[in-house]
Amino acid sequence: SDEGVLLVHGEDRPGLVRAISSALSENGANIVSLDQHTDDPEGGRFFQRTVFHVNDYAAVRPALEESLAKLLGKGLGLTWTLSDRSVPKRVAILASTSDHCLLDLLWRQRRGEIAMTVPLVIANHTDVADDVRSFGIPFVHVPSGGVDKSAAEARIVELLKGNVDLVVLARYMQILSGDFLEQIGVPVINIHHSFLPAFIGAGPYRKAKERGVKLIGATAHYVTQDLDEGPIIEQDVVRVTHSDTAADLQRRGADVERAVLARAVTWHCQDRVMRNGRETVVF
Amino acid sequence: SDEGVLLVHGEDRPGLVRAISSALSENGANIVSLDQHTDDPEGGRFFQRTVFHVNDYAAVRPALEESLAKLLGKGLGLTWTLSDRSVPKRVAILASTSDHCLLDLLWRQRRGEIAMTVPLVIANHTDVADDVRSFGIPFVHVPSGGVDKSAAEARIVELLKGNVDLVVLARYMQILSGDFLEQIGVPVINIHHSFLPAFIGAGPYRKAKERGVKLIGATAHYVTQDLDEGPIIEQDVVRVTHSDTAADLQRRGADVERAVLARAVTWHCQDRVMRNGRETVVF
Amino acid sequence: SDEGVLLVHGEDRPGLVRAISSALSENGANIVSLDQHTDDPEGGRFFQRTVFHVNDYAAVRPALEESLAKLLGKGLGLTWTLSDRSVPKRVAILASTSDHCLLDLLWRQRRGEIAMTVPLVIANHTDVADDVRSFGIPFVHVPSGGVDKSAAEARIVELLKGNVDLVVLARYMQILSGDFLEQIGVPVINIHHSFLPAFIGAGPYRKAKERGVKLIGATAHYVTQDLDEGPIIEQDVVRVTHSDTAADLQRRGADVERAVLARAVTWHCQDRVMRNGRETVVF
Amino acid sequence: SDEGVLLVHGEDRPGLVRAISSALSENGANIVSLDQHTDDPEGGRFFQRTVFHVNDYAAVRPALEESLAKLLGKGLGLTWTLSDRSVPKRVAILASTSDHCLLDLLWRQRRGEIAMTVPLVIANHTDVADDVRSFGIPFVHVPSGGVDKSAAEARIVELLKGNVDLVVLARYMQILSGDFLEQIGVPVINIHHSFLPAFIGAGPYRKAKERGVKLIGATAHYVTQDLDEGPIIEQDVVRVTHSDTAADLQRRGADVERAVLARAVTWHCQDRVMRNGRETVVF
Repeated sequence: SDEGVLLVHGEDRPGLVRAISSALSENGANIVSLDQHTDDPEGGRFFQRTVFHVNDYAAVRPALEESLAKLLGKGLGLTWTLSDRSVPKRVAILASTSDHCLLDLLWRQRRGEIAMTVPLVIANHTDVADDVRSFGIPFVHVPSGGVDKSAAEARIVELLKGNVDLVVLARYMQILSGDFLEQIGVPVINIHHSFLPAFIGAGPYRKAKERGVKLIGATAHYVTQDLDEGPIIEQDVVRVTHSDTAADLQRRGADVERAVLARAVTWHCQDRVMRNGRETVVF
Repeated sequence: SDEGVLLVHGEDRPGLVRAISSALSENGANIVSLDQHTDDPEGGRFFQRTVFHVNDYAAVRPALEESLAKLLGKGLGLTWTLSDRSVPKRVAILASTSDHCLLDLLWRQRRGEIAMTVPLVIANHTDVADDVRSFGIPFVHVPSGGVDKSAAEARIVELLKGNVDLVVLARYMQILSGDFLEQIGVPVINIHHSFLPAFIGAGPYRKAKERGVKLIGATAHYVTQDLDEGPIIEQDVVRVTHSDTAADLQRRGADVERAVLARAVTWHCQDRVMRNGRETVVF
Repeated sequence: SDEGVLLVHGEDRPGLVRAISSALSENGANIVSLDQHTDDPEGGRFFQRTVFHVNDYAAVRPALEESLAKLLGKGLGLTWTLSDRSVPKRVAILASTSDHCLLDLLWRQRRGEIAMTVPLVIANHTDVADDVRSFGIPFVHVPSGGVDKSAAEARIVELLKGNVDLVVLARYMQILSGDFLEQIGVPVINIHHSFLPAFIGAGPYRKAKERGVKLIGATAHYVTQDLDEGPIIEQDVVRVTHSDTAADLQRRGADVERAVLARAVTWHCQDRVMRNGRETVVF
Repeated sequence: SDEGVLLVHGEDRPGLVRAISSALSENGANIVSLDQHTDDPEGGRFFQRTVFHVNDYAAVRPALEESLAKLLGKGLGLTWTLSDRSVPKRVAILASTSDHCLLDLLWRQRRGEIAMTVPLVIANHTDVADDVRSFGIPFVHVPSGGVDKSAAEARIVELLKGNVDLVVLARYMQILSGDFLEQIGVPVINIHHSFLPAFIGAGPYRKAKERGVKLIGATAHYVTQDLDEGPIIEQDVVRVTHSDTAADLQRRGADVERAVLARAVTWHCQDRVMRNGRETVVF
């Protein structure tokens, strides 16, 4: 489709929009849509997402990268990434026994709703194997391995390293080590089954029932070493009442979980999400 | 209007609905609507709200009370309250410097949306005095009195005791003592400016901004001695983005606060809310 | 589970709740939850849903039916249905080429979220055949047959008549004749891809884009002879913006469609929905 | 605050973002946020909103206007408006007997939530006069004048022409002539008490009750000569049930009306809304 996305972030200073649009313009690219945000008008950080169209993008790309490197990379200290909308992200999904988040992602991928391919699904149980394979996607069983999870993590790194651009935890229910996150080297998105920071940790639906809340929620976030503390990409809630049991909350929560995770993954694959410390900018 | 509301709760056992409907029927009352809930089919607690119509309710009421006392009060160990829909609840509002929750309640009261009268507004500052008086409602200034709040609390009890059926804290921003709650002897509803149990305590909007949440909320709850732990009546949220500052969150949160508090007070005044330990049943 | 649901509706008159609860009580049934509604306090219609528990329901049922027939059937002119919560509804799904509503229902059925079995899926195209069969559910292809649809309808009636309690149109895209509705003899639920009564008829997403609406929706309703005019069971909406194309609206609308249809079918199968002329009562 | 907003729209062509950011940059302005939209990548229309900061805006403005006129006005055929964020819009509000939308706007204006001043409120009844004056805002009574509304319209034009930047119909309930719209020469925003295009015309809540919808809504739109057909700025809905009467719908709808109108007016006053034929672009 000859469309690309350019993400730029760094210290704000005058003239950045002009510099970026000039670099695109000089390489024959026409801006299709542009979102820009500065988190503080004085001395803040600059974020920009630009979707552009250019004839024969593959051929033009090296020159464009050179222009951008000249303009953005040096004195200005900006970070930038360039992507091609015709190239879907390669996404591995890690699951456990629950199927709702996993199947929703696979089904949306099949419908063409998410700009991704799924080269592999890994789970620490085999419950979802048949469903995954019915989508024509390979399934690999990597048991968690009890207390010492390093062997399991090493196996996963071996399978995924260099092969994927994103890892999605679709109710994987295992805590990943800092070591793993470092080695895998790509972003990891998790779905937490509560409206964070409410009900951090295990058993959020039971806790929600005990506290008598009137809404339950789900949170998709990038995984960091601090459990349930990573930058939030998306959240949503659903109304519950006194007549809902803890099992009802879990059932209704499952709908929010899969919707929230699907939106987070979709946006990430569209290069709409940029990290800003503990926050995200979602264009 | 000759309509009444009967609330009954207690230990569940067979035949309760029949016993209650018989008592009403025998006194010439026709059930207009009925909601019943048992929180556990085996050995749970029973909750019922019945709206009924009866000709000349004022005249019939003593006989009805006697029937109910016979049926429900003794062996069954049930608790019940009977009210008259033509008699609005008497509600005192406690405020501080913010006007949004207070004015919204007064507007709705004037429009006839909430079945209440407001005999008095008390605040620990005088900012809202003129607005309150423009509604023809008395305003009394009771300064908080620094560290020792007992004098202020005693003054409020003196003003309200016996004169009101409900106290509403419309962003009152003062913590009430257990002593006060006991002496005032009527329910107290508070609006907390976060989606509890997230961001308990002070400064929730600042904390929400720092955590980078994508939704902010508000919670109306009955006040108990445990701060921010009382039974939740109503909650709601609104979507925010990275471009919202902490001040934006506060502004958008104010809209949710006033909406949530108005719903909680409306439902309480319609006798729709029953406490069940740390939870509420809202019919 | 020995739980049953009793639905009663008809002309309102004093004593109905008492009569129904007495009939249940006399047959040893304990009321678990009860919802009652009268659409007009004077001369209105009466609606009641009662969930009850009774030991050995199957054995007690004939006597209970006799009691109810005596109490409700004759003089009072009420209509009532009795069901057993341990017996799922038998639901046939009619589809066309779209899979989103169909698969969501089948997933939920497999997860145990909807109290139904699906003995058969019929479609006028074969696109969804493999997916349906992967759930172990029979698929039958009944082509629409051009202008004269009577042969196709006759074939569907032949397959379903007497075998199902409900027919669900999961984006079936064919208009069913009054004749068909009469012969099939069970309720038919349809999902319309707009927030009715906005955008009645074909192409609602295109029309929504042209009109520049900021929310799009979906509507689940019982099918009647008047197209898009049947009693509404459930509706919901999702926010859209100027940057969404008509194709985006269709994609986002698909999420609302499947959620709304799933809720409507779930509630119908829980005996929560009662018709009241052009409206529904949903308890 | 030395911040300005530049809105540009017109035929899309390569290099527009660069040209605009250059013009700003050359005049010492730093871009604070930028939103850009093209409604069709091939031959579509271009929309851009740029918020910029420049030292001593008042002094720089003439030079900036000249640069923009050179760049945008001529060959490119673009339309642009420049505004100063420190100058609030002057907004007249037209009301009738309902106070909910009117008071909400005045209260938000007083809180500093909407970047507007309200030099005048006009109503065709006197019910709201005291409330308006309690905000220190002049109230003028202009009776509608029966069948021939031209005298009333002439009086309103006389009062407002040249004095305001926007007219808001806060449940004004009178249809304005095309003549009036032309003479007044500024945008007019109306709040319609339904989710357009459902329930066009009078009595939407009654119609909604008769149709048995499960959500009711409100729509804020620019007024054009075609009644209820103007470009939609904002819409929202609220859930209702079978137990809500038409009066309940009206009451609950009032909450949506005031929220939707407040958002539309706030966005307009922030220069966030651009017309695109029958649609709006809301940045």
